[in-house]
Amino acid sequence: MIKINKRITSDWIRGFTDGEGCFYVGINKNNIMTMKVQVLPEFSIIQHQKDVKLLHEIKIFFGCGLVKRNNKNIMCYSVRNLKHLNEIIIPFFEDNELLTLKKYNFIKFRWIVKSMVEKKYHLNSLGLEKIKAVKKRMNTQKNNKIESNLLEIDG
Amino acid sequence: MIKINKRITSDWIRGFTDGEGCFYVGINKNNIMTMKVQVLPEFSIIQHQKDVKLLHEIKIFFGCGLVKRNNKNIMCYSVRNLKHLNEIIIPFFEDNELLTLKKYNFIKFRWIVKSMVEKKYHLNSLGLEKIKAVKKRMNTQKNNKIESNLLEIDG
Repeated sequence: MIKINKRITSDWIRGFTDGEGCFYVGINKNNIMTMKVQVLPEFSIIQHQKDVKLLHEIKIFFGCGLVKRNNKNIMCYSVRNLKHLNEIIIPFFEDNELLTLKKYNFIKFRWIVKSMVEKKYHLNSLGLEKIKAVKKRMNTQKNNKIESNLLEIDG
Repeated sequence: MIKINKRITSDWIRGFTDGEGCFYVGINKNNIMTMKVQVLPEFSIIQHQKDVKLLHEIKIFFGCGLVKRNNKNIMCYSVRNLKHLNEIIIPFFEDNELLTLKKYNFIKFRWIVKSMVEKKYHLNSLGLEKIKAVKKRMNTQKNNKIESNLLEIDG
């Protein structure tokens, strides 16, 4: 049984995520879905398998997510469940603000997750276009403050 | 003037270093030096230039080190001064233990810095061989606990 390391604190998670965390939104073709595409927001932290124990401890810290193998030596802690993203991961990073520019990426990620949970944007074409437009500006070199601020006041 | 962000805490630095920090010891030929080699321990954190402000804030947090350009878009916070490593960086990571296996790398790094400061190992051939042997085991996939523990009890 893996016990959580007492030294995994909110601030450590915040710093480690500033270094290693990733907020990503996949938009994949899927004919089963209403809109023929599936929107898949994912929070993940990747580590070499030698530190897999730490990923399991992070999983216990958040109380959600999965630890899985990405490839031969690379392991990944991943949260894809929309309820867990909306009710656990997003509130955590609202309370524990990132310090790298990754924080603006987080704001776009949050906008997409909330638009899915609260407005079902992924289930209609206009909403889906809005999601695609925001996703397009994620994980870019620009990732700027102004456009993220707009998402905070926009609906 | 860059002010330090209040949210840069010891635990955030610990988490960010677990993700992005590097403890490295360079051993370079240098005919000016007594032993014809120069031992250069360095603590560094590398970031894309878009987050260079954060590196300057880390520099203010530690009160030592330099922020310099590594290449076109990559910036580096670096501490090479032996006194600063021994009196600021090492005590910090003794009090704020890393959680990834990087901590065993830190123990080897600390052993080398202390052997230079306290025993001048880098200035005699036997000492230099010991430093080279420890350096050889740094930043490897193995980087294991047992050999780092030996360095904690060995002199």
